[in-house]
Amino acid sequence: MAVKKKNIKVVKKPAKKPAIKAAVSTKKPAPKAVASSKPKAGKYVYFFGDGQADGNGKMKELLGGKGANLAEMTRIGLPVPSGFTITTEVCTYFYVNGRKYPADLIPQMEKAIARMEKIQNSKFGGVDNPLLVAVRSGARDSMPGMMDTILNLGLNDNTVLGLAAKSNNERFAYDCYRRFIQMYGDVVMGVQKREGEDHEPFEVVIDELKEDLFPGRHDVADTEVDAAGLKELVKRFKALVKERTGKEFPNNPWDQLKGAVGAVFGSWNNERANIYRQKYGIPHEWGTAVNVQSMVFGNTGDNSCSGVAFTRDPATGVKVFYGEFLINAQGEDVVAGVRTPDPVAQLQVKMPKAHRELEDVRKTLESHFHEMQDFEFTVEEGKLFMLQTRNGKRTGVAAVKIAVDMVKEKLITWEDAVRRVPADSLNQLLTPIFDSKARKTAKMIATGLPAGPGAASGKIVFNSDEADALANKGEKVLLVRLETSPEDIKGMIASEGILTARGGVSSHAALVARQMGKVCVCGASELHVNYEDQTLTVGDVTYKKGEFLSIDGSTGEIFAGEVKTAPSEVVQVLIEKTMAPKDAPTYQYFAQLMTWADKARKLRVRTNADQPDQVENAVSFGAEGIGLCRTEHMFFEGERIDAMREMILAETEEDRKEALAKLLPFQREDFVGIFKALKGLPATIRFLDPPLHEFLPNTEEQQAELSEKIGVSVEDIQKRVEELHEFNPMLGHRGCRLGIVYPEISAMQARAVFEAAAIVIKGGGKAKPEIMIPLVGFPKELELQLEIVHSVAKQVQKEKGVKVAYSVGTMIEIPRACVAADKIAVQAEFFSFGTNDLTQTTLGMSRDDSGSFLPYYQQKAEIVKANPFASIDEAGVGELMKIAIEKGRKTRPEIKLGICGEHGGDPATIKFCHNIGLSYVSCSPFRVPVAKLAAAQAALA
Amino acid sequence: MAVKKKNIKVVKKPAKKPAIKAAVSTKKPAPKAVASSKPKAGKYVYFFGDGQADGNGKMKELLGGKGANLAEMTRIGLPVPSGFTITTEVCTYFYVNGRKYPADLIPQMEKAIARMEKIQNSKFGGVDNPLLVAVRSGARDSMPGMMDTILNLGLNDNTVLGLAAKSNNERFAYDCYRRFIQMYGDVVMGVQKREGEDHEPFEVVIDELKEDLFPGRHDVADTEVDAAGLKELVKRFKALVKERTGKEFPNNPWDQLKGAVGAVFGSWNNERANIYRQKYGIPHEWGTAVNVQSMVFGNTGDNSCSGVAFTRDPATGVKVFYGEFLINAQGEDVVAGVRTPDPVAQLQVKMPKAHRELEDVRKTLESHFHEMQDFEFTVEEGKLFMLQTRNGKRTGVAAVKIAVDMVKEKLITWEDAVRRVPADSLNQLLTPIFDSKARKTAKMIATGLPAGPGAASGKIVFNSDEADALANKGEKVLLVRLETSPEDIKGMIASEGILTARGGVSSHAALVARQMGKVCVCGASELHVNYEDQTLTVGDVTYKKGEFLSIDGSTGEIFAGEVKTAPSEVVQVLIEKTMAPKDAPTYQYFAQLMTWADKARKLRVRTNADQPDQVENAVSFGAEGIGLCRTEHMFFEGERIDAMREMILAETEEDRKEALAKLLPFQREDFVGIFKALKGLPATIRFLDPPLHEFLPNTEEQQAELSEKIGVSVEDIQKRVEELHEFNPMLGHRGCRLGIVYPEISAMQARAVFEAAAIVIKGGGKAKPEIMIPLVGFPKELELQLEIVHSVAKQVQKEKGVKVAYSVGTMIEIPRACVAADKIAVQAEFFSFGTNDLTQTTLGMSRDDSGSFLPYYQQKAEIVKANPFASIDEAGVGELMKIAIEKGRKTRPEIKLGICGEHGGDPATIKFCHNIGLSYVSCSPFRVPVAKLAAAQAALA
Repeated sequence: MAVKKKNIKVVKKPAKKPAIKAAVSTKKPAPKAVASSKPKAGKYVYFFGDGQADGNGKMKELLGGKGANLAEMTRIGLPVPSGFTITTEVCTYFYVNGRKYPADLIPQMEKAIARMEKIQNSKFGGVDNPLLVAVRSGARDSMPGMMDTILNLGLNDNTVLGLAAKSNNERFAYDCYRRFIQMYGDVVMGVQKREGEDHEPFEVVIDELKEDLFPGRHDVADTEVDAAGLKELVKRFKALVKERTGKEFPNNPWDQLKGAVGAVFGSWNNERANIYRQKYGIPHEWGTAVNVQSMVFGNTGDNSCSGVAFTRDPATGVKVFYGEFLINAQGEDVVAGVRTPDPVAQLQVKMPKAHRELEDVRKTLESHFHEMQDFEFTVEEGKLFMLQTRNGKRTGVAAVKIAVDMVKEKLITWEDAVRRVPADSLNQLLTPIFDSKARKTAKMIATGLPAGPGAASGKIVFNSDEADALANKGEKVLLVRLETSPEDIKGMIASEGILTARGGVSSHAALVARQMGKVCVCGASELHVNYEDQTLTVGDVTYKKGEFLSIDGSTGEIFAGEVKTAPSEVVQVLIEKTMAPKDAPTYQYFAQLMTWADKARKLRVRTNADQPDQVENAVSFGAEGIGLCRTEHMFFEGERIDAMREMILAETEEDRKEALAKLLPFQREDFVGIFKALKGLPATIRFLDPPLHEFLPNTEEQQAELSEKIGVSVEDIQKRVEELHEFNPMLGHRGCRLGIVYPEISAMQARAVFEAAAIVIKGGGKAKPEIMIPLVGFPKELELQLEIVHSVAKQVQKEKGVKVAYSVGTMIEIPRACVAADKIAVQAEFFSFGTNDLTQTTLGMSRDDSGSFLPYYQQKAEIVKANPFASIDEAGVGELMKIAIEKGRKTRPEIKLGICGEHGGDPATIKFCHNIGLSYVSCSPFRVPVAKLAAAQAALA
Repeated sequence: MAVKKKNIKVVKKPAKKPAIKAAVSTKKPAPKAVASSKPKAGKYVYFFGDGQADGNGKMKELLGGKGANLAEMTRIGLPVPSGFTITTEVCTYFYVNGRKYPADLIPQMEKAIARMEKIQNSKFGGVDNPLLVAVRSGARDSMPGMMDTILNLGLNDNTVLGLAAKSNNERFAYDCYRRFIQMYGDVVMGVQKREGEDHEPFEVVIDELKEDLFPGRHDVADTEVDAAGLKELVKRFKALVKERTGKEFPNNPWDQLKGAVGAVFGSWNNERANIYRQKYGIPHEWGTAVNVQSMVFGNTGDNSCSGVAFTRDPATGVKVFYGEFLINAQGEDVVAGVRTPDPVAQLQVKMPKAHRELEDVRKTLESHFHEMQDFEFTVEEGKLFMLQTRNGKRTGVAAVKIAVDMVKEKLITWEDAVRRVPADSLNQLLTPIFDSKARKTAKMIATGLPAGPGAASGKIVFNSDEADALANKGEKVLLVRLETSPEDIKGMIASEGILTARGGVSSHAALVARQMGKVCVCGASELHVNYEDQTLTVGDVTYKKGEFLSIDGSTGEIFAGEVKTAPSEVVQVLIEKTMAPKDAPTYQYFAQLMTWADKARKLRVRTNADQPDQVENAVSFGAEGIGLCRTEHMFFEGERIDAMREMILAETEEDRKEALAKLLPFQREDFVGIFKALKGLPATIRFLDPPLHEFLPNTEEQQAELSEKIGVSVEDIQKRVEELHEFNPMLGHRGCRLGIVYPEISAMQARAVFEAAAIVIKGGGKAKPEIMIPLVGFPKELELQLEIVHSVAKQVQKEKGVKVAYSVGTMIEIPRACVAADKIAVQAEFFSFGTNDLTQTTLGMSRDDSGSFLPYYQQKAEIVKANPFASIDEAGVGELMKIAIEKGRKTRPEIKLGICGEHGGDPATIKFCHNIGLSYVSCSPFRVPVAKLAAAQAALA
């Protein structure tokens, strides 16, 4: 048995990066029951080995994830090195009883060790053929901050000789030994860098030894230290431990084992683990298990190897054996990336027998766990051992393909498939992505908030008009702004993506971008935008207008230069219609999953859209109507904005009516387009909502231009701008407050809706308007607005001789509306929760200003788990929603309930909406598939 | 019987202004029961006359206010012209049964008329001595919009001759007749101005007649038209009625009477009355009664008169007979003010017998009604008749004096006295007032919102520094601003009063003014303030800096020039201590009432104050501690603001701590002063609340100045100002969000509190700090802040060797805190409802911006009854408060509950707070007496 010289530098706690990066995590499956998962009283140690196991895969609570799966693999006949798991109950006992163990623990461990000795034909502490073990922690889910692994436990000055003899490699044996002392000394005995020290103490000792062996040289490789040197190192390591701890390094393998077990339990309660548990709401009482397992060595020579593999390709989902391995190496070497591993296919050539066995293992794992598995293996002297298995992480594309394929393969049911694909991961099937090679070499210059998923690359442009002009010339542009406002919409439409220095994931830029399906990174505070110089500075580097930047709206990353992108198949089929379904396999998988989702879900899914093309997109994605049509977005273009401004500047009701008359045809035309695109699906139309000042020009130049156009003096315009200025526009003169003070605005909007409906109906089409009054707090506000709506509806129907079926309702978006919902429901046939504003008012938190403290709240102070503007604040906003629903139903039991805030596309929120009994959610067009899947998952939960 | 020629111009519906202006209304008393108030089935007509009455004063529901009191006066022997009341039940019957009367109504009316004929020795429709009647409506409370009065009913072409004979004055008789036709034609028959007509039709006929009689003259007085002319006028009036209505004017007195009764009932349902009822929540079902009463004439000669009188002086409360009368006139002449009436004392000279009788009546009324009465009387040919009595309106000073005097006189109990004085009217005893003579001649130039009661006069100054400088020279100044900010505090302190062009009654100016007890008028939108020119323009008139203006903060009026003011006695005694109680009778009355209020109330009353002198004032007014000490107000003066700005501009935690260390001694010193002023009363101290940008200078000049002072570049200052800019500062980085991101701020504040407490306690005093964390929404926010507080408290107590008893709690001021109150109460020992912000967030309404629609909401659309920033919105904000209380008590049954928003001084809110079980209210120092009285009234309700 030839063992190669090994690099002496040990990776102390290897960063557990999976060898293959996968963007999506998946929930653990519920494996088919194979045995009871109930713990036995007084049983603390669960043995596994030689085809038998006390535990099984269902016992994750008792044995932890790793232990349960080791038992399960053993049970189904996979080659698992024998060992045992100390249960989580012992951990609990340990803490409840002042860090003591149950009396019967050691006897049970002794029995288990004896069984291992028998199976391995070796002896724990034996000189001839010593049993060495690995000790690992194992909570229900893997938990950062806890003690990970101690290898080679059982080595001492005697047993090391046995290992040397058995492996016929003294250097290998002493290298194992010194690694064990180093690991154990650090993790169990606490020999670590002290304040003021620059280097780890064990590393210092290694350097000193090298200096002694090769004086004056500073480039001594670990491999140059021979067996004698390592023997000396062992001595010095032990001296270091004694010096630092005042204790001898334990020679007795049982003392070593007890120490290691104690260290695992102790690490359950260390600071990092506690913080992690608090953050993810993991109960302290769960405790961790400890796994003690016979060592196997993948580094005993060219007939040994270690590897990590997946049962399918986690990037594409294709059903191939996927992974990598290193000949003559331990598992940690594969992970650490010291040598470049080979793809697992090569094993066929190098170790054909092991490869055949692994292929069998792969099939067994999938047919047993009914999930794609990520597993670790070691081949020792040609013999295969399985060290771990768990569900594999995967990309969105892979998640969909694997789920659908597994249904076809009858491994899982269609409901399982729906449950299993994280709803958000569908984004990856919808948005353009960076070409993976191009991305690897791209230079990241900053990060912002991921606000509109996908990848975009374009020339920097700082204003809307220029973006539009440049795009018209066929250029790809990226709109860069401090923040955006409705005036920027034209430029946003023209751009590949939008990048802002301010604002959160619910800022104007983010909201509009998602609605358009545009890529967006916002709130990138490292960016210094200088409109005057037309430059963008990050740190010392300045980017000028016209230079290329690229942004990843799924991660928030910003790259210098142009990074190649690839379009999404699903979008090419459904939206761009440049690809036939038959040529689009990913689309087909997506479509199949959506069909199942539609079958499962109870919630209906609508969209937030206000232009016919947006509506068409949403309907292509399966939207079942419009949940929120923001009519103000219709007033921002060309002549419309002029008429709008004329209306705002009008001094009398007469003048206001005259200006409104100019707006009427535009709005009517938009509604005609929308009704046609909906083909009979309902459209919830919200009346004018934003404060009027949003429509007026702010710069003197724009004001002068407007003055010339509409014949109102610049002075008067400025006066009106000043008059309309508000300290807190969010809480100002907006929503129904506009329609109440200026009833003629609501009358015009109602007329536009009903005239459009009449036109469509007369043309043989259908129109189902649902008029929604915003920002209602007082029942009488709704009453007054609906008086206008009903009266105009009556008039128009009479004038046009057409019957229009319509309903009326309100946004519930301020807390008062929630507590007065019983009174409001007298008039309202539906409630639509406007959770954007409801969150702002309930939390007293402006989404545009929360950037200065909310990140701190989430990350440092851990006051909120998720951004409340992205995922509903269930305990606050959610409580008020429940109050509103209860009160609303008291008055009108059949009241229709929906949500139209940005939260409507968030899976966690959708689950909440399902649970509290809403009828529908509404989200931006590109979120519709995500919402449908999330709704289905909520229904199947 | 000589009747003087009378002015022919009739005041058709005299505006019912009381002859004496009284600022305060009082609630109706609950007179001692004298008889049953139950209606008898089938009895529709309640007779009164000749010392007997079917009804009594308790039967206001059935007989209306006027009818019940007429019956009551008759019963107690007062000389009331006989008559009867048709019950409100008939009104209800009238509407339920398609405007028909109960079958037995007319027979009952006939019987009553017969009794009147017998008593008056006359005949209804009789030619010799015709019985004429007045018909008046009479709801429970007088109600604008309903038909008021028809006089002289019963006149026709025959009976007019009888009246002429009896009065020996043909012109008088025909004048009565034509007035009757005019009144009846208008009110009952609907002969009114039509669209397009410029003048009332009856007036047109009068003008035509004058033209016929005196062709070419345009200045003919009504009195120049003689009896013949009036006869002709009667003819033409009848023709007009026929022409306009197609009906003859009814000759038959019974037809006239039925018509008039129908008109009264009909007017119950007219638009104005309906709107009034809706506004004041008066049930439609109440209905109105109709009073039919024998006419008496105060205008039959010099032995007749009409008058209006009060049983005590309604302006001062002094127990004198107070009122005025006109010889040879009808009641409406006294009210209309055509001739100047004589004071009632003169009656002693001119009609001594009537005067003696009236003195008796005065005593009888008070001893019977136990309230100051406002009554109408007529003397016809030397004989006194009582036409009406009701509780008299009065000023605040009078209200207090009368209530206290009546207790001394054993007319009422002390509880009655407490119930009877409107809490708000105490303001008039606290604030300086305009000298009444000076005010009469003052020129009002505009009105704003009454925001800080009292009267002030001073020279116009447009900025804080100048105000301070001028005041230091001994000048009286009036600070005039577009709006105020914390930077203006110095100027506000220095000024007599504050006048702003923008902002509502809860604006910064108003809030601070009330806290200081300063006079304030705000939101006077007619004012154009030009800082550059240092002028103020109203309409065409421009006022320069240095010119005098005067403002009345109780009414919102603004006067040109200096108007003399008088200081309040109570303030001189309690606050200025320039007057001894024995020399201050009004103070003594006030103090007596306060003693009773303290006896009755359950709610404790604290104050919002943050300076030792404010605290002293509040304690002098009887405050029982501080409910809200806003610590940020301590940072605005002199060196403090510089250190504060240094802190805000600090780039590192170290620098921030250094700046905070400079603030510590200032804040500690303030707390020492406050604890001393409190003499052991508790102080709720709120930690830093406003967004930091409020502390930074905004003008370049100020920025340059600051830059020099603290050595930070202007650029950096501007950068920070820009960074701190918020879209919605109300919902921004403020409240506990500051202390969470910058824990060192909270630590400094906690240290200042506990060190100050230690100093005071060591000095033999007492200190009871209650630390209050603002803007908590998430339980963890409170937890994190309290960790700091408890840790600092422990440290300081250890350092100083002093035990400080303190408690900790939170503001409940955002809706999330209400629904999460159970979780928050785990940490909080008290809740203080911050209803300013809770109202803003619950209603989604910025108080600073609501001026553009809230007045419309109140006055035009009637969406809200009261300003929700002044009086709590019970159905909205109140509901959330109830939820918070219920949840808070579930966790901590003994939790202390208070309110510290501006609402804490509003009587309606205080009643609500009492009812929902709060422990205390807190209000500005000068509101403390009002709040105590309101609390007592709530307890006695």
